[in-house]
Amino acid sequence: MIKVFNTRHSFDQFRNALPSTTKIGLVPTMGNLHAGHISLLEKSGRENDITILTIFVNPKQFGPTEDFNLYPRTLEADIEKVTNISNNLNSRLKTEIIIFAPKDNAEIYPEIFTTTITVGPMTQILCGKFRPTHFDGVTTVVYRLFAIVKAHNAYFGQKDFQQCAIIKRMVSDLEIPITLHILPIIRNAEGLALSSRNQYLSPEENSKALHLPQTLIKIEKLLTSNQDPSLLVKDELQNKNWDYLEVLDAGSLNAITKTTKEAVIIGAYRLGTTRLLDNRLVKINA
Amino acid sequence: MIKVFNTRHSFDQFRNALPSTTKIGLVPTMGNLHAGHISLLEKSGRENDITILTIFVNPKQFGPTEDFNLYPRTLEADIEKVTNISNNLNSRLKTEIIIFAPKDNAEIYPEIFTTTITVGPMTQILCGKFRPTHFDGVTTVVYRLFAIVKAHNAYFGQKDFQQCAIIKRMVSDLEIPITLHILPIIRNAEGLALSSRNQYLSPEENSKALHLPQTLIKIEKLLTSNQDPSLLVKDELQNKNWDYLEVLDAGSLNAITKTTKEAVIIGAYRLGTTRLLDNRLVKINA
Repeated sequence: MIKVFNTRHSFDQFRNALPSTTKIGLVPTMGNLHAGHISLLEKSGRENDITILTIFVNPKQFGPTEDFNLYPRTLEADIEKVTNISNNLNSRLKTEIIIFAPKDNAEIYPEIFTTTITVGPMTQILCGKFRPTHFDGVTTVVYRLFAIVKAHNAYFGQKDFQQCAIIKRMVSDLEIPITLHILPIIRNAEGLALSSRNQYLSPEENSKALHLPQTLIKIEKLLTSNQDPSLLVKDELQNKNWDYLEVLDAGSLNAITKTTKEAVIIGAYRLGTTRLLDNRLVKINA
Repeated sequence: MIKVFNTRHSFDQFRNALPSTTKIGLVPTMGNLHAGHISLLEKSGRENDITILTIFVNPKQFGPTEDFNLYPRTLEADIEKVTNISNNLNSRLKTEIIIFAPKDNAEIYPEIFTTTITVGPMTQILCGKFRPTHFDGVTTVVYRLFAIVKAHNAYFGQKDFQQCAIIKRMVSDLEIPITLHILPIIRNAEGLALSSRNQYLSPEENSKALHLPQTLIKIEKLLTSNQDPSLLVKDELQNKNWDYLEVLDAGSLNAITKTTKEAVIIGAYRLGTTRLLDNRLVKINA
C-alpha cells in the first residue's frame, strides 16, 4: 500500500527518518490528478529515490469570487491512480511515491502564520491582471511546501507558464536549494491542454475551447516562418473570450527584443465561468 | 588583521571553505558601530567559533523621503573598532570576527531581484504607520543575509523591538534554520538608548530626548505597582513629539489581554527630523 500522510507531524516523522543520501523529488498539486500530473510523477520517479506528491487545495491562491469551494477534490481516486503508477514504476525503477495530503489548512499554515512572499512586476501581468493576489498565494504555498518537504528536485507543468517563471524567480531570489524541472504540456486527443478545470466545460464549450490551442498554433506558424503575428493577435482580441493573448520573451515575460532567443505565445480564454490557459514556446532570431 | 570581504563572491569563497562543524554567529548591522553593536559582537563571540558582522546600509528599508543618503557610513572606523574587539575576544575565547561589507547594492540584490517578503499586520502598526514599506525592506534584507551567511545564530538589539518581533515571525513562518538572540538595550549615562541616529541631535535636542526613556520608566513604575498607565499615556500624547507611545502585549504586539504575561512599553519620539525609538519590557499579571 502507498503511504499517505495527512498531518504535518506524521509527514515530518517520515521525512526526518530518511537518510540524507535519499534523493527526493516533489510534485506539488491540488489533486484531481490527470495525465499531466502523471507525467510529472513518472519523471520524478525516474530521477529520484522517493517522490513526494503533495495534494493541497491552497486557499491563498484563490480570489474571494473564485472556485475554491467548487474545485474538484477527489482524494480516493487520486490515491488509486498513484498506487497504480507507483507499483508500475517501482517494478522497473525501485523508486517510491508517497502522498502528503494535509487534512486541513492549519497543517500548512499554522494559526499565527502571517508571511507573504511576493515576486515583483511579473505577478501583475497576464493572469495577474485578472487574479491580483493569485501569485502571492502560489509563491507562499510553494515556499511552504519546499520548506516542509526539503526535496532536491521539484516538478511543474509548463501549462502554468507564468507560474513557473514566477517560481523560478523566487527560487533564485531566495536562493532556495532545489532544482526546478518544467515539463511539457500534456494535451487530449483534440489538442486541449489537460486541466482539472476542463471538467467544468459543457460539451459545447469543450469544442469551442479548441479555439485556444488552435490560435496558438497559428501564431507559432507565423513566427517560425518569420512573419509578424501582431495583426492576427489584434484580430483575435476582438473576440471577448480572450482574457489575454500575447507573444512575449519567454525568459523575462517582457516584450520581445532583438536579443530574445525564445518567445512564449501565451493565452487565457474564458468559456462561461471557466478560464483556460495554454502556451507554446518558439525559438526565434535563430 | 581582520578579514573584510566586500563582494558576495569573495565572501562565498570564505564561507564555503568553512568546515560544517564551525558554529557561526551573524551580527547584521548598517555600520556606524556603537556600544549596542559591540554587545552583540561580544555575545556572538562567546557563543560561536566565527562571528560574521555584516555592514550594509539597506536601501530597501528607507522610504523615499528618509535619511538613506545622510545615514552615517564610517567603514574605516568600524573596522578599527572590530579589530580591537576581535583581538581582545580572541585572546580569551579563540573566536574570530570577520566583516562582510558589500561594496554596493548589487552584492546583496542581483539586478534581476524582484522578491519581497512581507510579514502580515504586525508591520502596519507602530513604526509601520509612519514608515509603510520599512519592514518589508527589513525582512527582505534579513532574509538575504540569512541566506548568504548561513549562520547558526543571529544577534539583534532589543531597541528595535518591533523589528525583532517581525523577524521572529518571519523565521518561524518560513522555517529558516537559525536561532535568534535579542539582546538588551545599551544606554548612555543619561539613559538614552544608543542609536546611530543620536548623532543627528543638537545639544538641546539631546537633552530633550531624555523625555523618551524617562516617560517609559514612569509607565513601568505604574505597571509594576499595578496601576493603570492609560491616563499618563493619554496626557503624554498631547505632546506632538510622540509619533506613538503604547503599552502592548510583548509577544503579539496586540492590546494587552488577561492572558498577557509580558507587556512592552514602546515609543517613538521625534526631535526635529530625528526619530528616536525606545522600549521596556515588564512582567504583568504575575
